[in-house]
Amino acid sequence: MANIAKKVSWSGRGDDRGERTPLLNGDEEVKYNRQLSGGGIFHIGRLSTVDLEEEITPEEDIVRSRPKEIPHNEKLLSLKFESLDYDNSENQLFLEEERRMSHMGFRCLEIRRWVICGLIGFLTGLIACMIDIAVEKLAGYKYFAVKLNIEKYTELGGLSISLILWAVLNSAFVMFGAIAVAFVEPIAAGSGIPQIKCFLNGVKIPRVVRLKTLVIKVFGVICSVAGGLAVGKEGPMIHSGAVVAAGVSQGRSTSLKKDFKIFEYFRRDTEKRDFVSAGAAAGVSAAFGAPVGGVLFSLEEGASFWNQMLTWRIIVQYNLYEIPLFIIMGALGGVLGALFNIINYWLTIFRIRYIHRPCLQVMEAMLVAAVTATVSFAMIYFSNDCQPLGQDNTEEYPLQLFCADGEYNSMATAFFNTPERSVRSLFHNPPGTYNPVTLGVFTLAYFFLAVWTYGLTVSAGVFIPSLLIGAAWGRLFGILLSFIASSQSIWADPGKYALIGAAAQLGGIVRMTLSLTVILVEATGNVTYGFPIMLVLMTAKIVGDYFIEGLYDIHIKLQSVPFLHWDAPPTSHWLTAREVMSSPVTCLNRVEKVGRIVDVLSNTSTIHNGFPVVAHTSENDEPGIICGLILRSQLIVLLKHKVFVERASSRLSQRKLQLKDFRDAYPRFPPIQSIHVSQDERECMMDLTEFMNPTPYTVPQETSLPRVFKLFRALGLRHLVVVDNENRVVGLVTRKDLARYHVGKDGLEELHLAQT
Amino acid sequence: MANIAKKVSWSGRGDDRGERTPLLNGDEEVKYNRQLSGGGIFHIGRLSTVDLEEEITPEEDIVRSRPKEIPHNEKLLSLKFESLDYDNSENQLFLEEERRMSHMGFRCLEIRRWVICGLIGFLTGLIACMIDIAVEKLAGYKYFAVKLNIEKYTELGGLSISLILWAVLNSAFVMFGAIAVAFVEPIAAGSGIPQIKCFLNGVKIPRVVRLKTLVIKVFGVICSVAGGLAVGKEGPMIHSGAVVAAGVSQGRSTSLKKDFKIFEYFRRDTEKRDFVSAGAAAGVSAAFGAPVGGVLFSLEEGASFWNQMLTWRIIVQYNLYEIPLFIIMGALGGVLGALFNIINYWLTIFRIRYIHRPCLQVMEAMLVAAVTATVSFAMIYFSNDCQPLGQDNTEEYPLQLFCADGEYNSMATAFFNTPERSVRSLFHNPPGTYNPVTLGVFTLAYFFLAVWTYGLTVSAGVFIPSLLIGAAWGRLFGILLSFIASSQSIWADPGKYALIGAAAQLGGIVRMTLSLTVILVEATGNVTYGFPIMLVLMTAKIVGDYFIEGLYDIHIKLQSVPFLHWDAPPTSHWLTAREVMSSPVTCLNRVEKVGRIVDVLSNTSTIHNGFPVVAHTSENDEPGIICGLILRSQLIVLLKHKVFVERASSRLSQRKLQLKDFRDAYPRFPPIQSIHVSQDERECMMDLTEFMNPTPYTVPQETSLPRVFKLFRALGLRHLVVVDNENRVVGLVTRKDLARYHVGKDGLEELHLAQT
Repeated sequence: MANIAKKVSWSGRGDDRGERTPLLNGDEEVKYNRQLSGGGIFHIGRLSTVDLEEEITPEEDIVRSRPKEIPHNEKLLSLKFESLDYDNSENQLFLEEERRMSHMGFRCLEIRRWVICGLIGFLTGLIACMIDIAVEKLAGYKYFAVKLNIEKYTELGGLSISLILWAVLNSAFVMFGAIAVAFVEPIAAGSGIPQIKCFLNGVKIPRVVRLKTLVIKVFGVICSVAGGLAVGKEGPMIHSGAVVAAGVSQGRSTSLKKDFKIFEYFRRDTEKRDFVSAGAAAGVSAAFGAPVGGVLFSLEEGASFWNQMLTWRIIVQYNLYEIPLFIIMGALGGVLGALFNIINYWLTIFRIRYIHRPCLQVMEAMLVAAVTATVSFAMIYFSNDCQPLGQDNTEEYPLQLFCADGEYNSMATAFFNTPERSVRSLFHNPPGTYNPVTLGVFTLAYFFLAVWTYGLTVSAGVFIPSLLIGAAWGRLFGILLSFIASSQSIWADPGKYALIGAAAQLGGIVRMTLSLTVILVEATGNVTYGFPIMLVLMTAKIVGDYFIEGLYDIHIKLQSVPFLHWDAPPTSHWLTAREVMSSPVTCLNRVEKVGRIVDVLSNTSTIHNGFPVVAHTSENDEPGIICGLILRSQLIVLLKHKVFVERASSRLSQRKLQLKDFRDAYPRFPPIQSIHVSQDERECMMDLTEFMNPTPYTVPQETSLPRVFKLFRALGLRHLVVVDNENRVVGLVTRKDLARYHVGKDGLEELHLAQT
Repeated sequence: MANIAKKVSWSGRGDDRGERTPLLNGDEEVKYNRQLSGGGIFHIGRLSTVDLEEEITPEEDIVRSRPKEIPHNEKLLSLKFESLDYDNSENQLFLEEERRMSHMGFRCLEIRRWVICGLIGFLTGLIACMIDIAVEKLAGYKYFAVKLNIEKYTELGGLSISLILWAVLNSAFVMFGAIAVAFVEPIAAGSGIPQIKCFLNGVKIPRVVRLKTLVIKVFGVICSVAGGLAVGKEGPMIHSGAVVAAGVSQGRSTSLKKDFKIFEYFRRDTEKRDFVSAGAAAGVSAAFGAPVGGVLFSLEEGASFWNQMLTWRIIVQYNLYEIPLFIIMGALGGVLGALFNIINYWLTIFRIRYIHRPCLQVMEAMLVAAVTATVSFAMIYFSNDCQPLGQDNTEEYPLQLFCADGEYNSMATAFFNTPERSVRSLFHNPPGTYNPVTLGVFTLAYFFLAVWTYGLTVSAGVFIPSLLIGAAWGRLFGILLSFIASSQSIWADPGKYALIGAAAQLGGIVRMTLSLTVILVEATGNVTYGFPIMLVLMTAKIVGDYFIEGLYDIHIKLQSVPFLHWDAPPTSHWLTAREVMSSPVTCLNRVEKVGRIVDVLSNTSTIHNGFPVVAHTSENDEPGIICGLILRSQLIVLLKHKVFVERASSRLSQRKLQLKDFRDAYPRFPPIQSIHVSQDERECMMDLTEFMNPTPYTVPQETSLPRVFKLFRALGLRHLVVVDNENRVVGLVTRKDLARYHVGKDGLEELHLAQT
């Protein structure tokens, strides 16, 4: 966020610095921020606990002083989120270091990268195992206790006691998880995939890759899955992998104040991003046992450079049997997924408005846990679908209830179990295991439970519930087909339709395509369904996109994150850099007075993070010729080490400032307020030449928006300087300037910027 | 190639325009060019048949007048190859068109893209089927005839007649194929994958996506596979897919002089590249039945934006049983692959030097065909490995020879068959089908046959032969293991080791990784071997890379193609744009005299394809301020339509020049010589404002090479203007300027530029 002196609406274009805050009014901001933490999957943080160690995010100060109310926040773009810088600042220090490094040195770096990746894989696998084992154990104890209780009371009567026991156990587990998330680390709520998606896209989501987040996430997901919620543990595992990667690759933990002094070379955004995407892949790999799918996942969700549409266009070339059926199922998945997303969207809006206090959030989570238990119990109780106990006894906890001896209640297979086991039994159980009514009722009940659950303040994923819903109606679809078709043998395998249905439902909700195909193929170990799964995912995506976006994108949008999509909106050739850029820009001179630098950095009304360095003084308001770009964080480090021209003579005794000094401060640079500069020092001069990036990317004013967008996105920039034809700085383009434009119902729309 | 006034060596840096041709001497150029067509897999074209319709590649003229001899051509970089432009020229015409287009218009375009992709898939599938059926039929007749003959003479004696029959049949098939390739379209030789790789990388390989190439390729591959050579048909299928894509997406065939007047919007390099990569994917999909693998293939080989190393680092996180064995096999594959590549490298050098005439090439191909038949025959003849005929009779052509009744010769399974069937039988036949000696001898013989065959003037791929070699030694490895291991049951399945060996050998030769994993998994339909295959491919890649590059890269390098790898060489931070760029640059004025333009375009000593347009006249040698970039092709169209300022009044009656006029000329723009400009017209002026790209990407002189490289590669540029800090043009960076630097044994090396 280089320049918040930004026009707020399309019409107010000129010098509208004063118009910046029309959306801010009243004193509801703290409440609003609470709402955010409570509602969506994003929990950026409560303002009461602003961390002073955090790199300065001065909007928070502004927010504190100027509260606001934002009625339709998906039409806004938040100014709260900083951008990550995936473009190296190639200043003299950096170039000197690179040039000193031998060919062997680069080899060693490469080896170190592999070592880090190995560590990431190992630790992620360990964490995933831990989660798995803990969930299995806890759920085992719970189901065992409830089963004993049910068996006891089935004959005695008084099954309501069993219900209460079950509901209380569930609520208790969920309570612990929800408390940890709501009170300790709100960002650990939800699946974590949208946050990782944003991180890889280049948006800095505060605290998303911290150790504390990891601990709470792991604890939270164990509690919520063991608590019987309609959730999965895959999303949290992926998030865990990303956190592990961010930690390991930096060779230190800022939270634990422990620096291992290794991997210092990797302390910058570019390297960190690469490792985080590897960590996410390791997470998928651990969660689904799908390494290739993992790689594709992090490509599809992360890498800037991969155009999904192109990929999908490539794949439509194949021909097979049963295609119409699969297309129908895909469309059904798309419609149901869209329905899921729409309901969840309204629910999230409701949560943002009304359920914003942590204790309310914990109570809602407990309520959902109790309702889940009750609904499940009622389903089991009223269902009279008795099935003979198989020889192989695939059921973990077969409930006899009112069934005859040697039989078990088949509804209980679906409900009296962790969702993962339920999916497996829907895929693999032989034909005749479930009757259609059971499946229909189950689909309906679980659908609404899952919608309600997603967005609770617990760490939880949406993969497995989606698969479960889809598997249920898919199996139902298969059974109905076999009634209709004359030849039983063709439609003999309802498990196949369960798989296809699961894919359709998941695709309809999250709208991922290629990576999901490979994940599902790898997870089921069955490559022959590769094509149908692809087809179904694509149909579900197309149909679903017609109604509403994917679940993750909805939640990203509700948070007003400046997310950059693959391409600029197609109809945006009308706009040029001149109209898109922020201006005027605060520039610094190559040799600048310390006092001015401190003033510029301290100015809370125009908080910039990057400053073009110009050759000539711009006293007389004429823009200077660009000769570099320097970041706020670099200036802070320079001020902290008092690198002033006047001290150069005494500095001869001192050691010269090294790249290491910048790396040590990465990524949590101190705020300017914490640096003391005396009145004498204010009169000193600072020479920025050595530290600025001497060759920032620039574009002329006439460049069209798609062209600016392409450059920005392909190179992962944070600041793009706009110059006139004599290389004088006239503006600066940042992520928000580009993310503001999107295609709405009636063509190109512009989002409002707000200090959300 | 914007500026061939280029320093040739590192030392001669200054104004060394005169030094450009030190490598050209003697009158051996035609011979050399012949050698190229004959030897490698690349057959760029014989000078005697230069196509005047071709976009002017003026080096050919130069070559014609100034012959040369190039002793170590892998240390050279050819100036012959033009670059493709994956950056749109956003001139006024383009912007106007884009701005006129409604939101609906963009939707229609998107739908059209899908339609094209569907067509590409359909046609590629059709062609693949055709090849398959033709090969099966022809090979069927051949083996049937030879089998009858062998059966006849086995008892009579005189098997040498059978041998002669077989050898003659093989040679005849191969002769037809080789003649077509050598005399009609040399670029159709080989697998076509290196060419497609170059195309997607942004290098323009002449005639690679022409209809004629497709016809010869299809015909050639049918002949060479039916002729019993140690080749596969997969590479040619991939190439065919790419040609189909390039043709269909343009909505016309220049060769057939047929313009369907559809898809005109897609007539530019960017769109064409996207479709060609889709076509290559369709080819993989058709060749292996592996659609996901196909997508990955075109990503791994094509898309600029995908860093392989990162991907591979991601994947190493998994843990399984038998890992050491797989690693050993992978390493073995790497070593054998490197051996294959080294031998083939020397062979290719030999061919470039001595086998350059088409008739020699045809004769070599026929010789190889005859030798293949002879070796096979000898193997079968001297092998006494008789196996009982199975009940299911999996053998297509079981040869009894000297075996007892009810038995067949197992060596014949491997040799008396198309390579594809042989691979399948090595994977799937039950333990005990082959004896170790048979396999060993077969591996050895086939290895050398395949090495010899690759690079012949026939269209042929290397996938299947590699798989076959690997499958043979893999199965051997499995059998030997079962002798060593005490417990037979663990090592019971030699087919598994055949698969792993095949992967190792293929990986060792071509060094692809992720896409090969998925292709092999999809092709074998067995997902459980996914991890071992990955592991083995990676080991093979690492071990092989230690010795020599992959086969495709070797052949690309031998052709001196300016291929850009993923990253700039790591130790290249020393270099800046100033040192890398070509200078001085020929600039044009915004309003320029027609005579000067014609002179500039006609100048055969400095053949530029892109010209910076500057604001001020640079008469007094002071560089002008950049205000745009115009391409040779655009100037040619302007000259052809006589768009002169003086005609503006009369032009009011005429229609204005449209983007359509440029598209109609794409991609074969006429040479400047074919445009007549009278002496009067030479005095006219041309206003370039409307047609130039007003916002070309620029970098300052101090930009480091890695930074220039990243910009160039990520955006797929053809010209990058280097400016000083007042935006005056000081140089131009093109593909060759970047491709020249590579990491050799002793650090950074610079390749020589030559008019090869």
